[in-house]
Amino acid sequence: MANSFGKLFQITTWGESHGGGVGVVVDGCPPRLSLSEADIQPDLDRRRPGQSRIVTPRKESDTVQILSGVFEGKTLGTPISMWVKNEDQRPEAYSEMATKFRPSHADYTYQAKYGIRNWQGGGRTSARETIGRVAAGAIAKKILRERFGVEVLAYVKQVQRISCDVNPETVKVKDIEANIVRCPDVAIAEKMIRLIERMRKEGDSVGGIVEGVVRGVPVGWGEPVFDRLEADLAKGMLSLPASKGFDIGSGFGGIHMTGLEHNDPFRMKGNKVRTTSNRSGGIQGGISNGETIYFRVAFKPVATVMHEQDTVSSELKNTTLKGRGRHDPCVLPRAVPMVEAMTALVLVDHALRHKAQCE
Amino acid sequence: MANSFGKLFQITTWGESHGGGVGVVVDGCPPRLSLSEADIQPDLDRRRPGQSRIVTPRKESDTVQILSGVFEGKTLGTPISMWVKNEDQRPEAYSEMATKFRPSHADYTYQAKYGIRNWQGGGRTSARETIGRVAAGAIAKKILRERFGVEVLAYVKQVQRISCDVNPETVKVKDIEANIVRCPDVAIAEKMIRLIERMRKEGDSVGGIVEGVVRGVPVGWGEPVFDRLEADLAKGMLSLPASKGFDIGSGFGGIHMTGLEHNDPFRMKGNKVRTTSNRSGGIQGGISNGETIYFRVAFKPVATVMHEQDTVSSELKNTTLKGRGRHDPCVLPRAVPMVEAMTALVLVDHALRHKAQCE
Amino acid sequence: MANSFGKLFQITTWGESHGGGVGVVVDGCPPRLSLSEADIQPDLDRRRPGQSRIVTPRKESDTVQILSGVFEGKTLGTPISMWVKNEDQRPEAYSEMATKFRPSHADYTYQAKYGIRNWQGGGRTSARETIGRVAAGAIAKKILRERFGVEVLAYVKQVQRISCDVNPETVKVKDIEANIVRCPDVAIAEKMIRLIERMRKEGDSVGGIVEGVVRGVPVGWGEPVFDRLEADLAKGMLSLPASKGFDIGSGFGGIHMTGLEHNDPFRMKGNKVRTTSNRSGGIQGGISNGETIYFRVAFKPVATVMHEQDTVSSELKNTTLKGRGRHDPCVLPRAVPMVEAMTALVLVDHALRHKAQCE
Amino acid sequence: MANSFGKLFQITTWGESHGGGVGVVVDGCPPRLSLSEADIQPDLDRRRPGQSRIVTPRKESDTVQILSGVFEGKTLGTPISMWVKNEDQRPEAYSEMATKFRPSHADYTYQAKYGIRNWQGGGRTSARETIGRVAAGAIAKKILRERFGVEVLAYVKQVQRISCDVNPETVKVKDIEANIVRCPDVAIAEKMIRLIERMRKEGDSVGGIVEGVVRGVPVGWGEPVFDRLEADLAKGMLSLPASKGFDIGSGFGGIHMTGLEHNDPFRMKGNKVRTTSNRSGGIQGGISNGETIYFRVAFKPVATVMHEQDTVSSELKNTTLKGRGRHDPCVLPRAVPMVEAMTALVLVDHALRHKAQCE
Repeated sequence: MANSFGKLFQITTWGESHGGGVGVVVDGCPPRLSLSEADIQPDLDRRRPGQSRIVTPRKESDTVQILSGVFEGKTLGTPISMWVKNEDQRPEAYSEMATKFRPSHADYTYQAKYGIRNWQGGGRTSARETIGRVAAGAIAKKILRERFGVEVLAYVKQVQRISCDVNPETVKVKDIEANIVRCPDVAIAEKMIRLIERMRKEGDSVGGIVEGVVRGVPVGWGEPVFDRLEADLAKGMLSLPASKGFDIGSGFGGIHMTGLEHNDPFRMKGNKVRTTSNRSGGIQGGISNGETIYFRVAFKPVATVMHEQDTVSSELKNTTLKGRGRHDPCVLPRAVPMVEAMTALVLVDHALRHKAQCE
Repeated sequence: MANSFGKLFQITTWGESHGGGVGVVVDGCPPRLSLSEADIQPDLDRRRPGQSRIVTPRKESDTVQILSGVFEGKTLGTPISMWVKNEDQRPEAYSEMATKFRPSHADYTYQAKYGIRNWQGGGRTSARETIGRVAAGAIAKKILRERFGVEVLAYVKQVQRISCDVNPETVKVKDIEANIVRCPDVAIAEKMIRLIERMRKEGDSVGGIVEGVVRGVPVGWGEPVFDRLEADLAKGMLSLPASKGFDIGSGFGGIHMTGLEHNDPFRMKGNKVRTTSNRSGGIQGGISNGETIYFRVAFKPVATVMHEQDTVSSELKNTTLKGRGRHDPCVLPRAVPMVEAMTALVLVDHALRHKAQCE
Repeated sequence: MANSFGKLFQITTWGESHGGGVGVVVDGCPPRLSLSEADIQPDLDRRRPGQSRIVTPRKESDTVQILSGVFEGKTLGTPISMWVKNEDQRPEAYSEMATKFRPSHADYTYQAKYGIRNWQGGGRTSARETIGRVAAGAIAKKILRERFGVEVLAYVKQVQRISCDVNPETVKVKDIEANIVRCPDVAIAEKMIRLIERMRKEGDSVGGIVEGVVRGVPVGWGEPVFDRLEADLAKGMLSLPASKGFDIGSGFGGIHMTGLEHNDPFRMKGNKVRTTSNRSGGIQGGISNGETIYFRVAFKPVATVMHEQDTVSSELKNTTLKGRGRHDPCVLPRAVPMVEAMTALVLVDHALRHKAQCE
Repeated sequence: MANSFGKLFQITTWGESHGGGVGVVVDGCPPRLSLSEADIQPDLDRRRPGQSRIVTPRKESDTVQILSGVFEGKTLGTPISMWVKNEDQRPEAYSEMATKFRPSHADYTYQAKYGIRNWQGGGRTSARETIGRVAAGAIAKKILRERFGVEVLAYVKQVQRISCDVNPETVKVKDIEANIVRCPDVAIAEKMIRLIERMRKEGDSVGGIVEGVVRGVPVGWGEPVFDRLEADLAKGMLSLPASKGFDIGSGFGGIHMTGLEHNDPFRMKGNKVRTTSNRSGGIQGGISNGETIYFRVAFKPVATVMHEQDTVSSELKNTTLKGRGRHDPCVLPRAVPMVEAMTALVLVDHALRHKAQCE
């Protein structure tokens, strides 16, 4: 098991879908940062099931409680422990999962690896696990904003084949949050929502792409050769449930260009070294170059569908299984705060690491 | 700086393009493995510049020397130090790089981060840095093969727009190594080679995709929630110079399907749980499921081109720079052993981690 | 801040004396271990204030709650989160501590380091912080006992100048637990108790030595050159509040012998390689040799005394301070389970590490 | 195996007594530090065998070569690789060690752990392994001195029963280095030297105590709760070959005092908070308090003696073994630079960690 992330700003998450709750310990937070539950809850609300008609309907308030590390409204520099109680526990709804492996879920691999699994609601493989990340990410975002002037945001760029053009330099949070699918292009958002609603009716699901953006990063963050900024971002993103791919800057599309076309020329802008294009995605040689960082994360369609599918039982017999109960036709709107959280966690960790060696 | 990779099978690389050489220390290698330079050199030869007419012509024998950790032909369980001397050092060829930042290279970001850089041949940002990885990866591949029956391989899947269909289940190393571009489809390989040769003549460059494959992985490797097998693979790949993207299994393409289409049904095959399709790419919930692991890595076109380009000088004046001397029109053939190395390093680390907790 | 300990069996502790409570997340616990609160509580009770007339009288039940990682009475291999609520919170009792630095406490250094501190009850520097360690240590002890046949125990060997002779090979837990000072020599224990009671009356305090013992360790645990078994034990012990020294085997006393006198001769006992003396303390070259491991930890006298002492205020003026309220004349009886916990945490981590590389 | 030490200033050592040499990679060194072999060699010379008539006579020049990480006399921020070739290799002198386990050496435990060992000169368990530490420590000392105004030194405080009184606040390097035993009290040093010479003649050996001192540390270094400054010092010291104990400040002696006697009162000195005694040894609650840090390390007598001793052969038969060839009657003079090195490595790591979180 590996439930810690980060080297200097380190989080450790815990908890299963069913049980005492889920939580996180944040170690390495700078002292004297103003902090209360009010800084955390909004991002948890954006991650919460039941927030709109296009996401899973599980009923949880996901109310966070800070148990340590804060004194008279300020961080102490000691570990910040945060906890969200589980409320909507319906183990009976999952009884068939006790004996059958859901296709393209982690039931089988967990059972094979550990010889045991909490089959109630997916246990540790439930998306509830990301609550700890989002709570910790809210702190990371605050540090980046207040101490470094860095802004982290994300949005849904594509749902199945419906995709939008967004300018990472100028996109605004209020436009992202203006609709339930979290796509800043309102016309495209409408189409996405209609597709997701159709999927819900059909008991099926869709995936797509979330784009992450970081603005205002100073030159110099990133630790070659192994902890390049994009390498740690890639790891953070691929550690999210249902993610299948990551690319940065020109990414997979950049391979259609030649080197001459692809290179980002340097030019002075005032007294700053800037690039006139940004196919590098704000990172060169693993180190931020002062331009906007932007990258994409591919999420597969949710595995639970309301259709009969071939599978295998825990007694290793062929059988079939049909999803029941709560149905999540698209994880993307809720993945937006998850992508932001992992991004912020990577960035703040690198901010501290850069400070340690180079400042 | 972060020059170590791996938790239990840990490598630490060192060295610049110009200077005493490049090397690696491998810590955590199991004892009593037969090992000599003959196990390492072949992969270094596949990584070596000058190996064919379509790669960079730097003249280096890249002869590896094992300095410690091996006794009477067997590993001791102590650190294995390996060293490759630098031979073809021509600092004078890089004199313009001392005063100008090459576009889409790491000259500017290194200078800004560290306030100093070894501008000779790119210093630590040179692809020479990967020698240590490839040498260590050769050991990791040997362990996987001999102790776990696991095979790691990679090939060039796409050069710019020229792409091939390869079956990860059946592709053979001898077909990959049969041509200088390392694409197992001989007809497509010919086209790729012609394109790269044209690029060389034009003083330009192209990028593309390397696909990595791991066959024979047992069920159970991978450490959720943060060190999912695909998360560590993604980090390993994005830590390679010039890489811009990673996806696994259905990857970015999988988002065109619905959940019902995308899911991999389980079926018994003999006494084994298998999936009848493999869009998961051999990993579910971050843990190997016994199917073949396959993934893609996007590499941008090489940044050094033989054309005048806009850039900025170290005195922060606008200027231009034209690449001179050695020209590498395509990094892909040499990226193949790099992808294999990082893959093997991730896999062997996870093999040991799984053993520690679960066996 | 550094609130994680261990590489493969990793604990992360959190919590201040006053606030939501204290707790620990245990990551890397092997799956399918029987576990419930009943396995943890006894060691917490041995650590608890108010357990006898010779320790601090703070009134806490210290009831542990397992929040995650256990399902139907078995560990899942996922993180085990444990929590103990704070009950006896009397911030008002500490109001003078808000403005004055207690001598030989950490008030001043925390304030200087973090620019802030939770002065209530010492905050994170309170001995309450060790609850998480002891809870995690109880799991570690259980793993060692059930999976490896290894027994961990500790006892009070010396209080100020009153010291006892104990044979680490044969000492029994029931003799240790037979009296409130946890010294297995009943006559010496009586003297120790009388001394501590006198200290309580005088408002003063005493320190001493706890000896730790590990029996049944197989040959081969320990990871040279830096994570020698004794090095990690030393770190674990010196990370305990109030500890000032550590020595192992012959320790500081061994320097009175010559090499010839000090060496442990090897002899076969049945088919086992054994030593006829054990000045090495069960560890040679950083690796267990199959003999009993034994070591000593020095604890200084508790810093809080009921006497007026010179100190400095937070406004950096000379002043005086007199301890009030709860008085702990001797930490040793409660340090016994702490030493056991840190010992077990080190040992189980090394058991897993050895398995990973060498088995 | 665990051959890396440090979190932000991380060293990785490699090499056996016999083989290609020994070395170290230093990762995380701040950039733009002036550095050349001339900064390293003096400490290696102080560690070198054959430096005087009271240490082991192995003939090695131990000439260090910097292979990477330095450019035009300045550190680059990239890994610094350093290498010392083995010269005086006499495997034949050790042939009996191939078949017999030396008492109180690591021959048996290495063989049992790894199933293989390099018996030539002790392989990795040779004191030659510390060359990498001392080389890296020389860099750490330079950083501490130049960037933080911190001075690290050590001296021999006791040889067997001959002990000296030294004031850690005022002791001078030139007095330490004025004699071959490295004890700053010249009269006591004479006695120590005579004892060691007698041991040499008798083919026996003695141990003793090295005291380490750090002056000028600012308030605030140290990372509770697990990486307290004294905990990391303890680990560093107990990772040295032949060390058996560590204590800090009043240490084991402090347990003879009561709390009232032991506490260090705070008083203002000018505008600084100081303590009027320093039984804390410069660290309170795991964090430096601005006073001088001082601690002791116990080293057992060298295990190789020129006398017949009982032991066991690799075929597990009882036998005897008599040390031959080079004889080291006392490791202490050479342990002085080792203690300094580990101290400096711990301190510089903590300096960087403190900067990252709290500055």
